[in-house]
Amino acid sequence: MSILVVGSLAFDNIETPFGRSDNTLGGSSTYIALSTSYFSDDIKLVGVVGADFDEEHFQLLHNKGIDTRGIQVVDEGKTFRWSGRYHYDMNTRDTLDTQLNVFAEFDPHVPQAYRDARYLCLGNIDPELQMKVLDQVSNPDLVILDTMNFWIEGKPEALKKTLERVDIFILNDSEARLLSGNPNLVKSARIIRKMGPKTLIIKKGEHGALLFTDDGIFAAPAFPLESIYDPTGAGDTFAGGFLGHLSRAGEINDTELRKAVLYGSAMASFCVEKFGTEKLAGLDLLEIDDRYQSFLDLSKIDDQ
Amino acid sequence: MSILVVGSLAFDNIETPFGRSDNTLGGSSTYIALSTSYFSDDIKLVGVVGADFDEEHFQLLHNKGIDTRGIQVVDEGKTFRWSGRYHYDMNTRDTLDTQLNVFAEFDPHVPQAYRDARYLCLGNIDPELQMKVLDQVSNPDLVILDTMNFWIEGKPEALKKTLERVDIFILNDSEARLLSGNPNLVKSARIIRKMGPKTLIIKKGEHGALLFTDDGIFAAPAFPLESIYDPTGAGDTFAGGFLGHLSRAGEINDTELRKAVLYGSAMASFCVEKFGTEKLAGLDLLEIDDRYQSFLDLSKIDDQ
Repeated sequence: MSILVVGSLAFDNIETPFGRSDNTLGGSSTYIALSTSYFSDDIKLVGVVGADFDEEHFQLLHNKGIDTRGIQVVDEGKTFRWSGRYHYDMNTRDTLDTQLNVFAEFDPHVPQAYRDARYLCLGNIDPELQMKVLDQVSNPDLVILDTMNFWIEGKPEALKKTLERVDIFILNDSEARLLSGNPNLVKSARIIRKMGPKTLIIKKGEHGALLFTDDGIFAAPAFPLESIYDPTGAGDTFAGGFLGHLSRAGEINDTELRKAVLYGSAMASFCVEKFGTEKLAGLDLLEIDDRYQSFLDLSKIDDQ
Repeated sequence: MSILVVGSLAFDNIETPFGRSDNTLGGSSTYIALSTSYFSDDIKLVGVVGADFDEEHFQLLHNKGIDTRGIQVVDEGKTFRWSGRYHYDMNTRDTLDTQLNVFAEFDPHVPQAYRDARYLCLGNIDPELQMKVLDQVSNPDLVILDTMNFWIEGKPEALKKTLERVDIFILNDSEARLLSGNPNLVKSARIIRKMGPKTLIIKKGEHGALLFTDDGIFAAPAFPLESIYDPTGAGDTFAGGFLGHLSRAGEINDTELRKAVLYGSAMASFCVEKFGTEKLAGLDLLEIDDRYQSFLDLSKIDDQ
């Protein structure tokens, strides 16, 4: 199943209570694509970088079988940079610096060879750009979209217009409350699903995730980790694992969606164990399946 | 399986964004016993009330088959009163007034006929009083204890001494962090289980509960309720349903503990749907099993 991922590519400076990491590869599409790469060998990436995005970064993506021909390189520009600091509880962070650089002028162009991708994943970028991508692809089987509070507050109308064309929408609990205007997540879900996406995933950070479909609600637990080093990219990594499982399964029904949420959760639980994409770059299928099994065991009742 | 419940009996004045309820029957042992009563017909209650605790209140407990001979009635005194107001998000509350009244001098006396109860549930009261109860019973098969931040901060040594004699300890996430001195719940659980209780339940309010045993970790989801009217007593009601299922099962192993956590969660999810003990007083077994099944369905994956 061919997959097209569109989103940001970035270099991050990250500070957590456990240390810091500078110039680490980041961005929504990087995390999504790396996470998905464990499930699919047909991933195409669209994004924009500057001249500072050098061969080793492309190599890292190529090593995972990711097609990077859709990444525009702006020779006279620099890659998007983000600097942030996490608080003691790791649930809140301060953005110290944002340099949009080449991302400020990003005008996504989907290469001809990418346009018939069956699954489209729109990472967290301006909803007007997400719409531009939708206009360039030929009727994919599945459109997944992620967003953030910045766009819900800044471009609500563009976002809602884009959502009409989305099958699966992923956002976190505070974003769901913000978008729906309702503090209750069940009511929020009903309001948001009426905007277009029949399937909705509300991520609750360290408390797991909720999946809303026509068939009901699925509650995925969070993995009780002893050490969380860096939450950066966990949400994108979740989306990547989720997408990856669905593409591998080849069909979309309630059972596969539930499994996909657990695979997304498993991938996210790895992501936070090291800084940036470090852990994500060096996993193998065996440990992913082990972690998935641990998620199943977490909520299993033997004779149920 | 005979069950002894010891804790507070109270009248509460409760304000939530959805209304208010005055002079409503409350207290930790009331919620625990009412919740347990759907699973057991051998519940004995020890507590203290004033002359204002009249026949209708005793009748409510008797109607559920609860033995109230262990409730001391102080004729010249008044029952414990608590007034509180919940905030918009229902997760935080302000205590507006506390009148300990007869509870200030409570010296628990376990009647002779109660001393051979097989399961002992120590509701949230002063750990020194919990210890006094333990000294009066004859080697029960199971001791369950609940506490709160007030005692963790105010009487940590008495609490730790009492915990050495406890099998199952129930507390919430912020209390676990406070008692262990560690922000990570997995590490907290390890530290607290070394204090005595081999089985630990950490409640996470609207995010479910975690069960820690020698066999591993179980994550119970929270029921995604559309309407929460009053969270008062939800934690005690959880303990009651948990205890109730264990007593009905008659054996304690990892599977029954996991089921008990879901029954506790199911009972708590009913409790918050109306003010005070109103909902808890009028349930039937069919709707309890329906709710339990809904909890199973929440985390079920069909072909797992």
